[in-house]
Amino acid sequence: MAHAPSAALSRRHEAVRAEIAARGLDALVVTSLPNILYLTNFTGSAAIVVIDAERVSFLTDARYVTAIDDTRGTPHECPALDVVIVEGSYDARLAEFLRGSMRRIGFEAAHLTFARHHWLTKTLNGAVEPIATEHIVEDLRVVKDDYEIFTLREAARRLSRVAERVVATVRRGRSEREVALAIDTHIRQAGFTKCAFDTIVASGPHAALPHARPGERTITEGDLVVLDFGGVYDSYCVDLTRTVSVGKAAARVREVYEAVRQARNRAVEAVAPGRSRFEIDRAARESLASHGLDKAFGHGTGHGLGIEVHEDPRITWKRPDVDTRDEAVAAGMVFTIEPGAYIPGWGGVRIEDDVLVTDAGVEVLTDASTELMEL
Amino acid sequence: MAHAPSAALSRRHEAVRAEIAARGLDALVVTSLPNILYLTNFTGSAAIVVIDAERVSFLTDARYVTAIDDTRGTPHECPALDVVIVEGSYDARLAEFLRGSMRRIGFEAAHLTFARHHWLTKTLNGAVEPIATEHIVEDLRVVKDDYEIFTLREAARRLSRVAERVVATVRRGRSEREVALAIDTHIRQAGFTKCAFDTIVASGPHAALPHARPGERTITEGDLVVLDFGGVYDSYCVDLTRTVSVGKAAARVREVYEAVRQARNRAVEAVAPGRSRFEIDRAARESLASHGLDKAFGHGTGHGLGIEVHEDPRITWKRPDVDTRDEAVAAGMVFTIEPGAYIPGWGGVRIEDDVLVTDAGVEVLTDASTELMEL
Repeated sequence: MAHAPSAALSRRHEAVRAEIAARGLDALVVTSLPNILYLTNFTGSAAIVVIDAERVSFLTDARYVTAIDDTRGTPHECPALDVVIVEGSYDARLAEFLRGSMRRIGFEAAHLTFARHHWLTKTLNGAVEPIATEHIVEDLRVVKDDYEIFTLREAARRLSRVAERVVATVRRGRSEREVALAIDTHIRQAGFTKCAFDTIVASGPHAALPHARPGERTITEGDLVVLDFGGVYDSYCVDLTRTVSVGKAAARVREVYEAVRQARNRAVEAVAPGRSRFEIDRAARESLASHGLDKAFGHGTGHGLGIEVHEDPRITWKRPDVDTRDEAVAAGMVFTIEPGAYIPGWGGVRIEDDVLVTDAGVEVLTDASTELMEL
Repeated sequence: MAHAPSAALSRRHEAVRAEIAARGLDALVVTSLPNILYLTNFTGSAAIVVIDAERVSFLTDARYVTAIDDTRGTPHECPALDVVIVEGSYDARLAEFLRGSMRRIGFEAAHLTFARHHWLTKTLNGAVEPIATEHIVEDLRVVKDDYEIFTLREAARRLSRVAERVVATVRRGRSEREVALAIDTHIRQAGFTKCAFDTIVASGPHAALPHARPGERTITEGDLVVLDFGGVYDSYCVDLTRTVSVGKAAARVREVYEAVRQARNRAVEAVAPGRSRFEIDRAARESLASHGLDKAFGHGTGHGLGIEVHEDPRITWKRPDVDTRDEAVAAGMVFTIEPGAYIPGWGGVRIEDDVLVTDAGVEVLTDASTELMEL
């Protein structure tokens, strides 16, 4: 179970209820596990939540009943929670549960498959009117509350200390895979539940691939090595990248590194409440362009962090059909700033930090040095 | 990328094409990443495949083009692959791609959200007739081919060696978390890409919870400790559980352990081509019942292994609405046998091995000893 205080959960429930009422729904069926975690502190792998004006009905199977019972009377207890035990099919139990007094039921269109929707509609056979909704819970999650900021700040502090230790794991003659294992061990020893994603260790020419996987290549004198890793701390994800030079950096290496570092600084400086996320991306992109490196930066500048390692807001350029969500960032949002430059055959550089939008502007949550390290 | 030989990929394509033809479809849109891996060897995190009578059209973004190009001319190249580069939205590119000569297009109803289906249908506006399909690729995946059996056999052999090393990580005074980290390190050092799931280390009373998460509890004299871990080897998952006794096992511990071990043996002996998966489950359950432990075994006896760590066949009892899939197991299927006994407040035992159904009966792929270890 996660540890959001009951009062925070209550506020989240009330915000969902306001949205349910505004849409004329009797209840919302929540099938996204990250959304369920946000509303109830539940960290298991199977549940459905039905939230209505009064109750939070929690459908789960016997495996998880003890974990939920253990939170009763604690400061992290989910308010107004009714456990509904599922013995066979979750969807069959849901259909049975809904077939009561409720009529207009919202469901999460982005978190229910076509097959499940089809089965439920057929089975409910008009007893319930299912209404597609999107982003009801996600729109709350994008602005972090005090508990979440506290947790993400602590997670980022711990990950920054990991970053400092990680540098020593990069040694000539070690394979990328060995370095990745050493990094993952540091992450776990720092109190993270697990890694937030598969750690990237991309050395030499591999560093030109933003999503390289650690392989058998051996770290060699003169390599640039991109180290991109993250951890899940009390259910919240943080994410950090540093690029190190094995041996003294050549002039071109230093040039590209400093260009990326400047782009990272420009993007961080562009963060403020009300600022467009496209504008923050542009700050990084134009900074790289001034060094002739705009074409070397093919991905977005950042992504939101929270219960998921990639969530809103997306700090990117505006693409039709994709970036249709709200443009302005707001106080309480937490996201990465991670510009890079990738040069095929030569290598690459990425520097990534995690930032919080504050009323005053920005707080950089990760505080590991961004100076180029020469190992 | 995974390493299925091109000829195996061709056979998989032909099997899908036969099914497409039988259903009167012009093509199948594959959106499940495990299914895409099965058909193309692609291990990245974003792609859509459209397979028709002649081609395998592969929609992906610039991040993955190099990885695919690098397979050209290798023994693992995907036959008849046409890469279609996605620059913005995958679904927008898919809609544009489909709006050609094809009419009746199958989609994977269990792997497309209601929201995506709705958007695609609206956008295609009658230009294409989308037909819901289920299990076309999964029904192929359930029976492993020679390459997959070779890979799973090697993975299980390596995991068995890990199991032998893992016993030494369980020490009095160590926390469950520390033991879990040590196990995960052994898994990675044994050549697995990563763990197949979050490792379970459940000691003392925690062992009564089948899905316990490793916590701060310290391993103590007299504990039973359930160790459940798995690895991904060349994209295939294996999974193994052993329960060890810290110190000399009390009489009751030995009784329960031997009852679970006997249930594991009975279930393994029940495996044969054509045998009902419910019957295999019953073999374990009745064996436990003969020791008065049937109520202590609340979960199914096993699950299929392959590209996913939980896939068909499910070795369980027949539940309405859930277990509607084929009943008989067949040669080439690979699944776990993992009976357990969980006694609240006292602890628990689980023993898990991975088996292959052969023409002759059964081959146990994991070969670590099942004798009770007293540490």
